[in-house]
Amino acid sequence: MNLPDLPALAEPGLAARVQHAIDHKTKPLGALGRIEALALQLALIQGEEIPVLREPQLVVFAADHGLSRRGVSAYPREVTPQMVANMLAGGAAVSVLARQQGLALTIADCGVDALLAPGAADLRIAPGTADASAGSAMTLAQAQQALSNGMALVERLPGNALLLGEMGIGNTSSASLLMQRLTGLPLADCVGRGTGLDDAGMARKLAVLEQALAVNAAALAPLDIAAALGGFEIVTMAGSVIAAAAHRRVVVVDGFITTAAVALAEALRPGVLAACVFGHRSAEGPHARWLQHLGVRPLLDLDLRLGEGSGAALAWPLLTAACALLADMASFDSAGVSNKD
Amino acid sequence: MNLPDLPALAEPGLAARVQHAIDHKTKPLGALGRIEALALQLALIQGEEIPVLREPQLVVFAADHGLSRRGVSAYPREVTPQMVANMLAGGAAVSVLARQQGLALTIADCGVDALLAPGAADLRIAPGTADASAGSAMTLAQAQQALSNGMALVERLPGNALLLGEMGIGNTSSASLLMQRLTGLPLADCVGRGTGLDDAGMARKLAVLEQALAVNAAALAPLDIAAALGGFEIVTMAGSVIAAAAHRRVVVVDGFITTAAVALAEALRPGVLAACVFGHRSAEGPHARWLQHLGVRPLLDLDLRLGEGSGAALAWPLLTAACALLADMASFDSAGVSNKD
Repeated sequence: MNLPDLPALAEPGLAARVQHAIDHKTKPLGALGRIEALALQLALIQGEEIPVLREPQLVVFAADHGLSRRGVSAYPREVTPQMVANMLAGGAAVSVLARQQGLALTIADCGVDALLAPGAADLRIAPGTADASAGSAMTLAQAQQALSNGMALVERLPGNALLLGEMGIGNTSSASLLMQRLTGLPLADCVGRGTGLDDAGMARKLAVLEQALAVNAAALAPLDIAAALGGFEIVTMAGSVIAAAAHRRVVVVDGFITTAAVALAEALRPGVLAACVFGHRSAEGPHARWLQHLGVRPLLDLDLRLGEGSGAALAWPLLTAACALLADMASFDSAGVSNKD
Repeated sequence: MNLPDLPALAEPGLAARVQHAIDHKTKPLGALGRIEALALQLALIQGEEIPVLREPQLVVFAADHGLSRRGVSAYPREVTPQMVANMLAGGAAVSVLARQQGLALTIADCGVDALLAPGAADLRIAPGTADASAGSAMTLAQAQQALSNGMALVERLPGNALLLGEMGIGNTSSASLLMQRLTGLPLADCVGRGTGLDDAGMARKLAVLEQALAVNAAALAPLDIAAALGGFEIVTMAGSVIAAAAHRRVVVVDGFITTAAVALAEALRPGVLAACVFGHRSAEGPHARWLQHLGVRPLLDLDLRLGEGSGAALAWPLLTAACALLADMASFDSAGVSNKD
């Protein structure tokens, strides 16, 4: 598998220069808190003292899952194509938010179990993965194709920011499996209620996922893990994350599923995490734990658990604000304001 | 003192109808978390099923404090007019954020110790309050004038949203005094490091504030508290909050100082709190405690401690997003999406 190299680290002086600029803005030292750290991160991603965000792209990666036939979700499998149609028609939360925030929206069909919806980008591998509780979710060739598709998609998209979204009934199950295998945490710590399972549903989900881990016990290398436990949308997204990082684009991560794609991308190509801004902490239980495991802090904490890219879209104005503050705030000197002694 | 009445509570069916609309949007129940609660709150403030935000006004209330001559701040007193000039020139954080978010910005001089800056709104009471550690910070007549000024300002401003900002060296001290008197918490729980005091500075600040509370021990009624411990900008802001609530405008609260104004307004006219959306939790220590005491949860938690209205401005896109989602998301029925059984 041919994965692109990540850009060289920013030259050592850049971080110091940006931090100096931030520290001399007309405000007490550090008073803009995490917005200052965000501005610095964006500068380092772009390798520029004044980062500028252009033509942000929100991509919803959609696919179906063999596991959804095993009763792991509160919603039926046909909701995936229905929601894809809803997104394309402009009625889904992500459609509304993308429109409102000026984000170009692409719905990438990575393997929905239905005909390609008019207006969706065709990144289809197959109409849904195989049942991961009975074997590998996809072949190694399919996983490689998904990664390639994701990388090629980013090459085609303009701009320098990629916001991650997803749709796929059953994909919290795939994300839980990936979390368990990538982090080594107990499975129970990696599983949440998804779109709203009751206690019986949770017990069933756990049992099915135990089975999937057992049957795929040999998958330990990153690409093997992707094939064994991934969804087409998650592996495609991982490819897009790698390509975006390679091109110095900022990646805005949404919730639990997109974190799975980022963690998988980081396993495949260590270093991509530096290009990722985590938009929010999901109310999906294991998400907070995974963020902690990755050592990252998300921007928002609003009890969201919708996915689609909604949390990434809601966080987006904080990124544009961070850039504007870095570009346009006056310094103590230029504004003639007395600094503290 | 003539304070306007608050609007009658929304008719009982409105909350239920809005909640029903939210619950039938194409998303799992509650999946948009606190954005759903925000949408409902905005609907109830406006008394409309589909709230619409128009011509948002960010007002920076600025004034000087007698206490700033007692060494309670890390910055010298002349920074107040310097920062007012910086805000008017467009170089302050709040200037950048207001421009970027499409917020009209008004700098209201409520009593800065300098000539009125060209471009500032003249709500001046006096060039700074008296030293609250030696007596009342202002007379009762001045407090009433400040409240009137704040109410009149809102009458003049268009739109239906008021975002609160402030500037005034020494005003965290006034806010701490108001917090202590209004909540009854120990003074030490009400005092933070402001713009960056060291340990010696903190000890000095605490001693001065103890003295201010002792000398103003008789001020126990809300208006007396405002006069004894308030700053001109805080009392003026309280007047604006009351007028905004009376006119069904949403009030977006920033950090510690603006929370003082809102708490004072709530003491003067119980019920205004319902019109307030808390933008963020400040890194200024006592702010989190005060929010908890008021029983409110802020939207953002980004370690901001700048004031100016920066946290309110950063939270603003969440309000517009909540309105857009309520207005424009499809329902399960309209989109032909299967709901969970």
